[in-house]
Amino acid sequence: MGVSAAVLDVTTMRDRLGRLRDRAAEAGVAAVVITPGSDLRYLLGVGGSSFERLTALVVPTDRALAPVLVSPALEFAGLGHLPLDDLGVEVRTWVDGEDAHALALAGLGAGPLAVSDMTPALHLLQLRDAGAAEQRLAGPILRELRMRKDVVELSQLRAAGAAIDRVHARVAQWLRPGRTEAQVAADIAAAIVEEGHAAADFVIVGSGPNGASPHHSVSDRVIERGDVVVVDIGGPLPSGYNSDSTRTYAVGSPHEPDVAGAYAALQAAQQAAVDAVRPGVTCESVDAAARSVLADAELADRFIHRTGHGIGLDVHEEPYIVTGNDLPLEAGMTFSIEPGVYVRGRWGARIEDIVAVTPEGVERFNTRPHDLAIL
Amino acid sequence: MGVSAAVLDVTTMRDRLGRLRDRAAEAGVAAVVITPGSDLRYLLGVGGSSFERLTALVVPTDRALAPVLVSPALEFAGLGHLPLDDLGVEVRTWVDGEDAHALALAGLGAGPLAVSDMTPALHLLQLRDAGAAEQRLAGPILRELRMRKDVVELSQLRAAGAAIDRVHARVAQWLRPGRTEAQVAADIAAAIVEEGHAAADFVIVGSGPNGASPHHSVSDRVIERGDVVVVDIGGPLPSGYNSDSTRTYAVGSPHEPDVAGAYAALQAAQQAAVDAVRPGVTCESVDAAARSVLADAELADRFIHRTGHGIGLDVHEEPYIVTGNDLPLEAGMTFSIEPGVYVRGRWGARIEDIVAVTPEGVERFNTRPHDLAIL
Repeated sequence: MGVSAAVLDVTTMRDRLGRLRDRAAEAGVAAVVITPGSDLRYLLGVGGSSFERLTALVVPTDRALAPVLVSPALEFAGLGHLPLDDLGVEVRTWVDGEDAHALALAGLGAGPLAVSDMTPALHLLQLRDAGAAEQRLAGPILRELRMRKDVVELSQLRAAGAAIDRVHARVAQWLRPGRTEAQVAADIAAAIVEEGHAAADFVIVGSGPNGASPHHSVSDRVIERGDVVVVDIGGPLPSGYNSDSTRTYAVGSPHEPDVAGAYAALQAAQQAAVDAVRPGVTCESVDAAARSVLADAELADRFIHRTGHGIGLDVHEEPYIVTGNDLPLEAGMTFSIEPGVYVRGRWGARIEDIVAVTPEGVERFNTRPHDLAIL
Repeated sequence: MGVSAAVLDVTTMRDRLGRLRDRAAEAGVAAVVITPGSDLRYLLGVGGSSFERLTALVVPTDRALAPVLVSPALEFAGLGHLPLDDLGVEVRTWVDGEDAHALALAGLGAGPLAVSDMTPALHLLQLRDAGAAEQRLAGPILRELRMRKDVVELSQLRAAGAAIDRVHARVAQWLRPGRTEAQVAADIAAAIVEEGHAAADFVIVGSGPNGASPHHSVSDRVIERGDVVVVDIGGPLPSGYNSDSTRTYAVGSPHEPDVAGAYAALQAAQQAAVDAVRPGVTCESVDAAARSVLADAELADRFIHRTGHGIGLDVHEEPYIVTGNDLPLEAGMTFSIEPGVYVRGRWGARIEDIVAVTPEGVERFNTRPHDLAIL
């Protein structure tokens, strides 16, 4: 229920806080308020979520003002390991009955307040009522920091990719006719933890017609011989960095006649998008690379979602690989490449790898075979 | 990553939506916007959390306007089982690139928008920018519905209490000298699931000096003979209703000399607070009942938190059993009674039961012995 600890060295914390202040100053805000979640984990290495009692890091852009960590007195023990003195962060604890939101704002200069994207309305509107009338999202500021991974982050995401690849390598054991999606998913969830994740954050087992719904989770549908099955799985490592990889399996030869041709086009589309990744290329052009291969195969209208999403401390974060996003890729950006083909009422397929933009081009963090795995 | 299903009958949904509209009209708002989380689970029986794509139920107070369920087209399959036609709920799906927040607001009359407390800033501020300039929290409206549990909710919370009691009944197996808090916690977490919970939401094992920090989670501290150990555990049943119960164990006779006397006072304080519960009594008077027993034992300054919190679809919700809360209790309210004694650097103890207010007085949902369990 509290804030759990992870490891981040003080140099990294200081660097990230400094860059946050620079970006926030450029954005013209008086301060950035960050509540528990991935943004706070990025800055101070602490996990946990927001609850009804306010915990927040308040980072003023005015360098004459110290950053402030506001915490319920009861929960401060979970933050006591942080090198707050070294970082020049002032601690303000509060007890039930005190106005924590006023405490968070005390001493700030005038100007807009940027608030982390996942801060609950409960805290956002209480900050407003405590005097921060002008509010905006901190996401655009933080994404500039978080979008380009450093070498430690890249190694964590590489390890996450290897861990989920080890799970996919074991899927054939569990995916058998006569078992339900839910039974298979329970085995996969256990393996996700066994292979080094802190939790199995999501397990999609979409068999037969369920595979045609990209966000189907699991059901009690019994898997039949000839089914095509989408398995999309992932979770956070103890470091907080996430895995996310999809492979599509066939339980015996597919009984739907159009699978082989469409899957070949899907595989070519996924490869084309990966091949398109290098510094300077826009996000939307990577999306277009996948989309045009599927269009050539007359499958354009079967690919009903974006090609990918950034990944790091959040499973979904910037950059989004989607039509309309003209952001140029830079080395250190990490995201999924996951085109799919969905035939309503019959079957679906998706292939998803996490990739990193390198100075030379691209590195895949998922390296399991991309063929339709016939079990 | 999507919205998972749970069961709620259409009559209950219709009743809750109707009462929400009544309360929202009294509060003078144009509509209530509810994003995935416990409020949406209360109204429609669907689980899940908010992500970057907007899913929301928009409930206008003007009865001429239908409630609207906004959903990414991709994720609507997870909501397709809902009796939306029967409920008169209009569906609006959207695809990447469309303005989902404008879609949510389309057709609403003028007036303030109430937004569920846990809605992320990301959506709140985009709703503001899409035209909902005047925003307030929906919490005060929803708590009037959610605070008084119906007979089905009470039976779920009773079942949750019985499930976590079965876990406490097994704790003695695992709590042994030479094991770390984290090892004990892992065994307890597995048992929480085995005994019928959907997940082990929190496992606090606070041994020796760690017990003096009420929100300590677990550590690699090795449990020693003579330690007093606080075990505070719980999680949601598949229905979404939560358990939360604390017992304090001693691993052999406590080596701290002041444990026996202070624990006896704590036990009396917890009993006094439970005995104080009945319709018409204020929340703060229940808190005072515990506090005065500890004050008489000169332990007032060792009890450093509120006496309790409401529980239901959230682990922490209204009513809070705290100084300053003059809300009178009513039958159907459910909350924890959990006084504690914390001796910094040495040991701590807490006793926590979930109770329900009944027409006649009080029912305990946790019935494990309250004595200091010497293992």
